[in-house]
Amino acid sequence: MCAQLLPTQPYKGTRDFYPDDMRLRNWFFGKIRQALELASYEEYNGPMLESLEIYIAKSGEEIANEQTYNFTDRGGRRLAIRPEMTPSVARIVAAKMGELNYPLKWFSIPNMYRYERPQRGRLREFWQLNVDVFGCDTYEADLDVIESAIAVLRSFGADETMFKVHINNRRFFNDVIAAICKTDADGAKKVSKIVDKKNKIPRESYVKELNELGIADEQISLIDSLYSMSVKEATALCPESVGTQELLSLFDMLEKTGLDKYCVFDFGIIRGLDYYTGTVFEVFDEAPENNRAMFGGGRYDNLVGMFAKNAKISGVGYGMGDVTLENFLFTHNLVPDIYKTDVKVLITRFDDVPYERYLTIADTLRQNGITASVYVGSKKFGKQIDYAVKGHYSHVLIMGSSEAENNTVKIKNLETREEAAVSVSDLVSALS
Amino acid sequence: MCAQLLPTQPYKGTRDFYPDDMRLRNWFFGKIRQALELASYEEYNGPMLESLEIYIAKSGEEIANEQTYNFTDRGGRRLAIRPEMTPSVARIVAAKMGELNYPLKWFSIPNMYRYERPQRGRLREFWQLNVDVFGCDTYEADLDVIESAIAVLRSFGADETMFKVHINNRRFFNDVIAAICKTDADGAKKVSKIVDKKNKIPRESYVKELNELGIADEQISLIDSLYSMSVKEATALCPESVGTQELLSLFDMLEKTGLDKYCVFDFGIIRGLDYYTGTVFEVFDEAPENNRAMFGGGRYDNLVGMFAKNAKISGVGYGMGDVTLENFLFTHNLVPDIYKTDVKVLITRFDDVPYERYLTIADTLRQNGITASVYVGSKKFGKQIDYAVKGHYSHVLIMGSSEAENNTVKIKNLETREEAAVSVSDLVSALS
Repeated sequence: MCAQLLPTQPYKGTRDFYPDDMRLRNWFFGKIRQALELASYEEYNGPMLESLEIYIAKSGEEIANEQTYNFTDRGGRRLAIRPEMTPSVARIVAAKMGELNYPLKWFSIPNMYRYERPQRGRLREFWQLNVDVFGCDTYEADLDVIESAIAVLRSFGADETMFKVHINNRRFFNDVIAAICKTDADGAKKVSKIVDKKNKIPRESYVKELNELGIADEQISLIDSLYSMSVKEATALCPESVGTQELLSLFDMLEKTGLDKYCVFDFGIIRGLDYYTGTVFEVFDEAPENNRAMFGGGRYDNLVGMFAKNAKISGVGYGMGDVTLENFLFTHNLVPDIYKTDVKVLITRFDDVPYERYLTIADTLRQNGITASVYVGSKKFGKQIDYAVKGHYSHVLIMGSSEAENNTVKIKNLETREEAAVSVSDLVSALS
Repeated sequence: MCAQLLPTQPYKGTRDFYPDDMRLRNWFFGKIRQALELASYEEYNGPMLESLEIYIAKSGEEIANEQTYNFTDRGGRRLAIRPEMTPSVARIVAAKMGELNYPLKWFSIPNMYRYERPQRGRLREFWQLNVDVFGCDTYEADLDVIESAIAVLRSFGADETMFKVHINNRRFFNDVIAAICKTDADGAKKVSKIVDKKNKIPRESYVKELNELGIADEQISLIDSLYSMSVKEATALCPESVGTQELLSLFDMLEKTGLDKYCVFDFGIIRGLDYYTGTVFEVFDEAPENNRAMFGGGRYDNLVGMFAKNAKISGVGYGMGDVTLENFLFTHNLVPDIYKTDVKVLITRFDDVPYERYLTIADTLRQNGITASVYVGSKKFGKQIDYAVKGHYSHVLIMGSSEAENNTVKIKNLETREEAAVSVSDLVSALS
């Protein structure tokens, strides 16, 4: 067909999913769907290709261009393979803004592409769970979303020793900085930019930059102390803030529903300065060897406004990458043997028995909900058994010419190695 | 966030899936997965982006360039968004050729893009079920694959009045043309090119072109008659052909397993001249208003050879588009009310009852596998009921301050409009 052989590896930063990989992935996604649907979240999706401009509008020309796979189609439209779901879902909500049933509780598990150097936990092609509540701007929505993240992780068997949700509030953050520094919103913004860099720059530069803005050393100490305060201690510094009320309501309800054991107040959670407007949170892996933020989210107001005039639809949500989740589950031994429990039957074939005898048995088993297959083709018995073992079959059926004459079949359990002869009419009950 | 509003419609030829659409889609795909897994097919997947050259190798530079979304990455790699799955699966098989457990029975439901003018049933972004058996080059694999297509359609409730599988064999086609025209393989190839155009060019030109190749009118009549012959009549014209043996074995087994009522021999099924090498088939919608081929497939030998030296892995399979399948199911009224059977509970909220009372009920219901949600936010009771009705909830729970005091709750069935008061501890059994 062609003179030169083509390379077999997938494109850099992408993965092939062989049946074993796919089975694991379907199990992951199935558990996630189940946990979210139990809490009345509904699944949606959108196209892989979007207009590039929606990413430019959200993140600026440079980031949108650099981090997406983008190109121009023959009609001159600038397109991008979606690198995230938020602009898509804002567009999708805006398109039917007047018809939808708010508050929306929506989730999606889209595949997407980010143009960056592949590294551990960050691939170019990935799937990302996106969970959002749109159309409710009070703490109940924040709680619902955080509860859903906990429910997803718990559904895999994770407990409070394995993960923690670190929570802060951007309104509170701004207001407490303003209160401590005795400055207005603009002044607080300048201070916040430096506070946001606290752990990324040397202590000396940190203090110097704050001093240059007129912040005294005692004020810097007070800001420092916020990082080890409880939510009650921290909010007491700024009792009038709307953010304080949100934090207190949220933590009060977490406590009353017993979810507080999964959660902690953390003034260090900021998540960039331009996007989030209220509650922000990050979920940390508590494993000592992997102790870091796995994913996060928060409240972002009125993203739908990019698409619709006078839109006032606030959102709160998070995005969780598939690779991150997989690493977490493997780290904590939360992935079971996904082949263990299934009955899957290979019907072996002998050339001196009419093929339709086997096909009819397979059909009967399937009609009764039992996974079954006749060995496709015609190979020696030993090869067929090897095939069954390698293919995760739980049982093989053996019907040679003498069994065929008596209308019986031997069932061999491949795990226990036990064999039993049963009449064809008793097969379904023997395997159920 | 930006001065100008962005358009809300999805990119031309692509679709947004709102929760109702997604629910339908998950139902479709769930049924397909279930039917195929019952027959021991295993799911796989690959990346959306592939090297453009694999499509060029299969279909030529022009078609590959024209019909795919393709571009060059910063490393100079020519990439395409996959327009079909066959080259990907051939690559994936080739990459682990020596380790896999043949015959492979594999399926996938990937999303893909084709660059063409959108029209009814053909969109730019679509999902396509791909089913293949690799590594068995006898008729049993052809049968298995055809049986799987029938099983998928039957799982939706389709019967033999709604669809038919039209079957031919490319080896038989070549050999019977050679036999009738008394020519060799090369001569038969020239004739075949014209026969392939039979229904696309005027009868006059058809006859003329065949005459020019030295084919007499009686020979043309004999070819004509093949289109209305049974498989036994047709194969009798060319008893020595390997294709004849394959056809007879296949139809014999279809008859013995009762699948023949879904199948018919059809000499008109050719499916292009360069690709298929044995059994070919197309599945027709039998609805008078939509009577046409919905999808098809067949045997293609050694596609894996593009990637691996000395590969001898034959394949047989088909691809079924999601839009085609949806049209078929709607045409034949095979889509049930997908909301009908589920219990989904909205817990309404009153401001004078502590919120955690509601949250605790929701948690208890979910722990018992019942989909439940507390109304997120704080709106008037009537608005909350509207929300439940519009959101396909089956029941609402009502706990005002007097019920809260007595630890009871009213259950309202939104379909029957019946109300019943139960104690909180009996809720799970009342809803199960």
